[in-house]
Amino acid sequence: MIENMVWGPEQEIYLNVPLGDLKTALAAEDRFVWVNIHDEPVESSREMLMDVFNFHPLAIEDALEETHVPRIDDWGAYLYLVLRIINPNQDFDEAFTTRELDVFISNNYIVTHQEKGNLGVEKIWQLVLRNPQHLGSTPIHLLYLIMDNGADDFILSAEKIDLILNDLEDQVFKRPEPEMLELISNMKQGLMGLRQVVAPQREVFNKMARGDYLMLEQASRVYFRDIYDHFHRLYELIDNLRDLTSNTLEIYLSVVNNKMSNVMKTLTIITTLFMPITFLTGFFGMNFFQPVMGATTWTGFTVFYVILGIMILLPVGMLIFIFAGVG
Amino acid sequence: MIENMVWGPEQEIYLNVPLGDLKTALAAEDRFVWVNIHDEPVESSREMLMDVFNFHPLAIEDALEETHVPRIDDWGAYLYLVLRIINPNQDFDEAFTTRELDVFISNNYIVTHQEKGNLGVEKIWQLVLRNPQHLGSTPIHLLYLIMDNGADDFILSAEKIDLILNDLEDQVFKRPEPEMLELISNMKQGLMGLRQVVAPQREVFNKMARGDYLMLEQASRVYFRDIYDHFHRLYELIDNLRDLTSNTLEIYLSVVNNKMSNVMKTLTIITTLFMPITFLTGFFGMNFFQPVMGATTWTGFTVFYVILGIMILLPVGMLIFIFAGVG
Amino acid sequence: MIENMVWGPEQEIYLNVPLGDLKTALAAEDRFVWVNIHDEPVESSREMLMDVFNFHPLAIEDALEETHVPRIDDWGAYLYLVLRIINPNQDFDEAFTTRELDVFISNNYIVTHQEKGNLGVEKIWQLVLRNPQHLGSTPIHLLYLIMDNGADDFILSAEKIDLILNDLEDQVFKRPEPEMLELISNMKQGLMGLRQVVAPQREVFNKMARGDYLMLEQASRVYFRDIYDHFHRLYELIDNLRDLTSNTLEIYLSVVNNKMSNVMKTLTIITTLFMPITFLTGFFGMNFFQPVMGATTWTGFTVFYVILGIMILLPVGMLIFIFAGVG
Amino acid sequence: MIENMVWGPEQEIYLNVPLGDLKTALAAEDRFVWVNIHDEPVESSREMLMDVFNFHPLAIEDALEETHVPRIDDWGAYLYLVLRIINPNQDFDEAFTTRELDVFISNNYIVTHQEKGNLGVEKIWQLVLRNPQHLGSTPIHLLYLIMDNGADDFILSAEKIDLILNDLEDQVFKRPEPEMLELISNMKQGLMGLRQVVAPQREVFNKMARGDYLMLEQASRVYFRDIYDHFHRLYELIDNLRDLTSNTLEIYLSVVNNKMSNVMKTLTIITTLFMPITFLTGFFGMNFFQPVMGATTWTGFTVFYVILGIMILLPVGMLIFIFAGVG
Amino acid sequence: MIENMVWGPEQEIYLNVPLGDLKTALAAEDRFVWVNIHDEPVESSREMLMDVFNFHPLAIEDALEETHVPRIDDWGAYLYLVLRIINPNQDFDEAFTTRELDVFISNNYIVTHQEKGNLGVEKIWQLVLRNPQHLGSTPIHLLYLIMDNGADDFILSAEKIDLILNDLEDQVFKRPEPEMLELISNMKQGLMGLRQVVAPQREVFNKMARGDYLMLEQASRVYFRDIYDHFHRLYELIDNLRDLTSNTLEIYLSVVNNKMSNVMKTLTIITTLFMPITFLTGFFGMNFFQPVMGATTWTGFTVFYVILGIMILLPVGMLIFIFAGVG
Repeated sequence: MIENMVWGPEQEIYLNVPLGDLKTALAAEDRFVWVNIHDEPVESSREMLMDVFNFHPLAIEDALEETHVPRIDDWGAYLYLVLRIINPNQDFDEAFTTRELDVFISNNYIVTHQEKGNLGVEKIWQLVLRNPQHLGSTPIHLLYLIMDNGADDFILSAEKIDLILNDLEDQVFKRPEPEMLELISNMKQGLMGLRQVVAPQREVFNKMARGDYLMLEQASRVYFRDIYDHFHRLYELIDNLRDLTSNTLEIYLSVVNNKMSNVMKTLTIITTLFMPITFLTGFFGMNFFQPVMGATTWTGFTVFYVILGIMILLPVGMLIFIFAGVG
Repeated sequence: MIENMVWGPEQEIYLNVPLGDLKTALAAEDRFVWVNIHDEPVESSREMLMDVFNFHPLAIEDALEETHVPRIDDWGAYLYLVLRIINPNQDFDEAFTTRELDVFISNNYIVTHQEKGNLGVEKIWQLVLRNPQHLGSTPIHLLYLIMDNGADDFILSAEKIDLILNDLEDQVFKRPEPEMLELISNMKQGLMGLRQVVAPQREVFNKMARGDYLMLEQASRVYFRDIYDHFHRLYELIDNLRDLTSNTLEIYLSVVNNKMSNVMKTLTIITTLFMPITFLTGFFGMNFFQPVMGATTWTGFTVFYVILGIMILLPVGMLIFIFAGVG
Repeated sequence: MIENMVWGPEQEIYLNVPLGDLKTALAAEDRFVWVNIHDEPVESSREMLMDVFNFHPLAIEDALEETHVPRIDDWGAYLYLVLRIINPNQDFDEAFTTRELDVFISNNYIVTHQEKGNLGVEKIWQLVLRNPQHLGSTPIHLLYLIMDNGADDFILSAEKIDLILNDLEDQVFKRPEPEMLELISNMKQGLMGLRQVVAPQREVFNKMARGDYLMLEQASRVYFRDIYDHFHRLYELIDNLRDLTSNTLEIYLSVVNNKMSNVMKTLTIITTLFMPITFLTGFFGMNFFQPVMGATTWTGFTVFYVILGIMILLPVGMLIFIFAGVG
Repeated sequence: MIENMVWGPEQEIYLNVPLGDLKTALAAEDRFVWVNIHDEPVESSREMLMDVFNFHPLAIEDALEETHVPRIDDWGAYLYLVLRIINPNQDFDEAFTTRELDVFISNNYIVTHQEKGNLGVEKIWQLVLRNPQHLGSTPIHLLYLIMDNGADDFILSAEKIDLILNDLEDQVFKRPEPEMLELISNMKQGLMGLRQVVAPQREVFNKMARGDYLMLEQASRVYFRDIYDHFHRLYELIDNLRDLTSNTLEIYLSVVNNKMSNVMKTLTIITTLFMPITFLTGFFGMNFFQPVMGATTWTGFTVFYVILGIMILLPVGMLIFIFAGVG
Repeated sequence: MIENMVWGPEQEIYLNVPLGDLKTALAAEDRFVWVNIHDEPVESSREMLMDVFNFHPLAIEDALEETHVPRIDDWGAYLYLVLRIINPNQDFDEAFTTRELDVFISNNYIVTHQEKGNLGVEKIWQLVLRNPQHLGSTPIHLLYLIMDNGADDFILSAEKIDLILNDLEDQVFKRPEPEMLELISNMKQGLMGLRQVVAPQREVFNKMARGDYLMLEQASRVYFRDIYDHFHRLYELIDNLRDLTSNTLEIYLSVVNNKMSNVMKTLTIITTLFMPITFLTGFFGMNFFQPVMGATTWTGFTVFYVILGIMILLPVGMLIFIFAGVG
């Protein structure tokens, strides 16, 4: 689907302008154009990008394929940005999945392109329709709106992951299960992937804030500095979360070994208490004390009560010794 | 609450000057102004910042919202600083919580703003009232006083945490408990958060000391260099503490396994001592030696005393062997 | 084997041109030459490189020996590149093996050299023969084609390894075996070796994209930037995979200890259940209760049923206590 | 205590010159002054530094308080250095304790200050008195002598720690004890603290060697480069030692688990040997074979010898199986 | 021992030229000198370096003492290099020991100095005597020959260590022994030491290749770039080996715990099989079933065979359950 929006200096908006008028608008100095392409076949997308906007073939190829790594290319008359956005409302399974958003931007147009879905762009499109004042003075302000919103989505996702991870850690303390290991491992991988997206994306906005591009007017730089700050905070948040997963893994091992240590202690106490007295019962169960041999002195009442006493006092004494001494 | 303080070159102080006079003072070259905003609704704060001081909307938004990451923005006529301060007297649960302090500063005014509480500022406000000499020649000296005090608060907090951690480590050596794991993990997270605040804050003062800002006179740079040194030391202290927590985690695991090893040794000794002689008692408890079969040679006195001897000497010998050989 | 290909501005191709014509073509301004050397004895290779192209002896030595580390040398009239390529279809045992590809390139010729095999070059040679348009305007475009394909091969290999590693991790969760440790260790080593190849190779293309070499025309730089991006992504992929192997090792240990903990629990439960009641049976198996001594009150029916009750209720009670209390 | 030393171009030394003459000497171009302050009350130290030398108040405050982090400040006419030195002969408990040495240096005077003790300075003071040739052409040479000696002291300390650590590691292999864990942990902390001192100290001499300070003549730079090399080597030594402690911790855990594994093997062998034959004795101890039931075929001599054979051969066979198969 | 070699533009060599002629040769523009000092007392070495060559005293001190850290000093007319070389044929105990080689080099002389032995230099000395063409145009080519050979020796050593480490890892998988821990620990320390030598040595050749020294002609730079590449590869090899040792340590722990886990499983199976049936034998060994009480129903043939059945079927059933269920 290819949508377009044309507006003038009074911020009056024309929607879905026909192709011819679009070209006229692009040529006019006081007309601004936003073309949004999503869920569109590659062929018709290429046509639009090539015939109407005349972008460099390499940039178009990058836009129509998955490029993975966010970056910014300066093509003189326009900038080409590969960005990635996230859906903060997706399930845990997808919590780390990001989608590519390609942007071509100049002082009088912005082209946004997504292969599938309209994530992050839809919201700003509607916002602008409801309140044209958000259009700002140039299309560059739209890029700020989209990515300010995009950064917020990333931070929301990271905070959701933070909550899940805190929850997981609590469970590890209470009752470590092997499934948690798998979950921790998956989270770590997901966070590593996320960081690989956020690091170059942060760099893109750093370059824009630093004024590497002549095309960007001085005034817009503070806005991109703002987005840079968001992504910087996000990057550190992700790093924190990664450290947290490593930590949780170590704690898991410690908790398991701790439990095992307690179990071993129980086993040892039980064994220590019963082995000696069981030996004693065995001793007096031998056939030496039977009628045949007649060692009756070993089987009299006195001996019996002495043995009985030992069998009660020995374990009690041991228990006292263990809990007082070994702890 | 919005308080203000106006003073002249003779360091005579006027408190809570009405709004009109405040504007006059701001316009005068030999009048200095300190406005302190805290626990104030967002609307009236915005009014003050916008109408009286005419700050940039983006800076005002940053000041009125939580920004998290300390930074410094040069707006030409004034600097906007996002700083974070800590309360060194709070409980352990809050030991890592920092609060945002926004500062607008120029050569003739300083505006301090906190959303809640008056932490770190109150003390300097009172100090200046008691002894106006601390006002220095420009409001920039007040910023130095506030953040010199702020750095001390951070270092006090870190040293408190250091004590707790040392204590914790001692306990781990003596008696490792799973709750300690949780405590260690919380400390590590807290320290990671603290570091994320201190690193950019240090950078802010580094920039000020380096002379990145034309507005700051040469003479004031040594003061900010001083604060930079404090935060640098703090940063390294925090790094040390983080390493210490990781260390404690590893030691925890080692201590637990060590204890388990000792418990296992006890278990093995007990089992090794009693299993063979219990077998012997079982052997002579079998029915072969009963009247029916009449294997009386096995149950005579001689055999009995031999067996008795074995039952005493075998465990004793084993014990000697174990403690001499295995250790 | 030494193959050559000469083409003109109309992209008409002459294959295996005799040596004399080759030299003429090299001297002509509108003729381009591709010489591909592979599986050729060192002597005849050296002859070609020295006599026809007059390369610097040090560069020739590097080309004819294994150099291991990718790099680029600027010899003024030409660039010498040591590159490494991978065969994505090889077995797991060889999954990390890379081969050296030496390239001499100038504005009107390209020389490719491999000690053994024609990996990565064959494909482009055939492609160009089928469709001469791929030759582009200068031989530099051929280098782009070869290494774009080379980068894809690397990424394919890395993704294959990723799959194997994910599989391995799943197996570790299910059933940790010592052989997996060996496999993990081998993978880690392989990935470390791969990273040592990819890092300098990425740097080679970074230099070409950055415009360090006067010989490369401005227009070609975007192509090498493209390859740089590929290798950059690859580098991060490899780093991720390395982290993943470390992770798997830690998880292995945790899973093993977890299993051991469960086994210990079973052992302790069994021992705790049977030791006390076995003691009881021993107690009533002693000879005190035999006709000789006649302690008949201990061996009456009442006592028997009480004991029987204890023997049934004690383990049951213990089991309930264990599963409710210890968990 | 405040000592001073004045010398002229002929290296004739005047000790403890009165204050008036000291000021004259400072003003003269061909007189050099060394003032050494130690174990002196803060007030009189401040008087000397302020009244005689006229140092900047901030530098004086830094000198009179503990500053912790070594650094160098360029005050134009003089340099102020915060350095730290170590006593290589102190006990292990104090092995990581460093002391602050403040130095003010210009082309014709040097002021050294220590709060407590005269560590590192005393030796050079005496050396110079014995052999005035060591004074060199300017006081800067004295700084070289003091810190060359200071670097040697650090390296001696580090080598002492290295010996202790090697010893400790040997003990861990032989007989791991929990106290060693505490020792390792303390060493790691101490080394971390030491590194925090050495890193900025190295940086101080790097700056001096690099020629950042106009005051230092070209010729003296090779000397500071020499000291820089010492501290660089020291820094790497400390890093090595830290790695070594981490290593020792891991080895500790491995050794403990190794021992535990051996203990478990013993336990399992004992249990495996005796459990089956103890069961057998129990079997033939049951009352079924008593006169009442009269199952005499079970209690004949044949059965007895068969059982006896099993009881001897079964454990022997098992032992052979265990030691041949499991190892 | 002090040897010297003088040669002219025709590469005619004069050996052991007397001191006077040596000085003449040094003064002549078309004479080149190589002085090699080894196993020589400090005094006579100093004499040579000071009187004949007039080197800076600090450089001479560095040459005559052990300096440990490779570096390069530019003394204007000559360069002073501290290098380290290794003997690839030494025993494992010494595999990480490097020796210092001091080199003074200018455009018409080279001085090599070793405290003990003639390692690495002897070979080149002989090579040059046999074939004077290797002398090249200036003594700088000799430095290239010596260190090209030196780099090869380092790589040979590293590859030997690699083999040993691979062997060790195999043994860890098969049969982990505590002695291996000690070996791993020693290797790690050795590699750490080696890296500390190689890193600055690589830097030395990087500086020479980069053209930091005016004295080195442009043409020689490609040679030092070559050596730099060797040391760079070596550095990465060492890093790999270090990672490998850490890895082996982790694997050791995993293998040990794995073995322990198997042992525990055996123990638990044995205990689980025999405890219940041993209890049963105890039950029927109690005196309740004796003539005195006459509970003959409990000791009839029916009960006996039922019990016998249980004693056989219970362990068999348990074994089936264990191997099917727990695995």
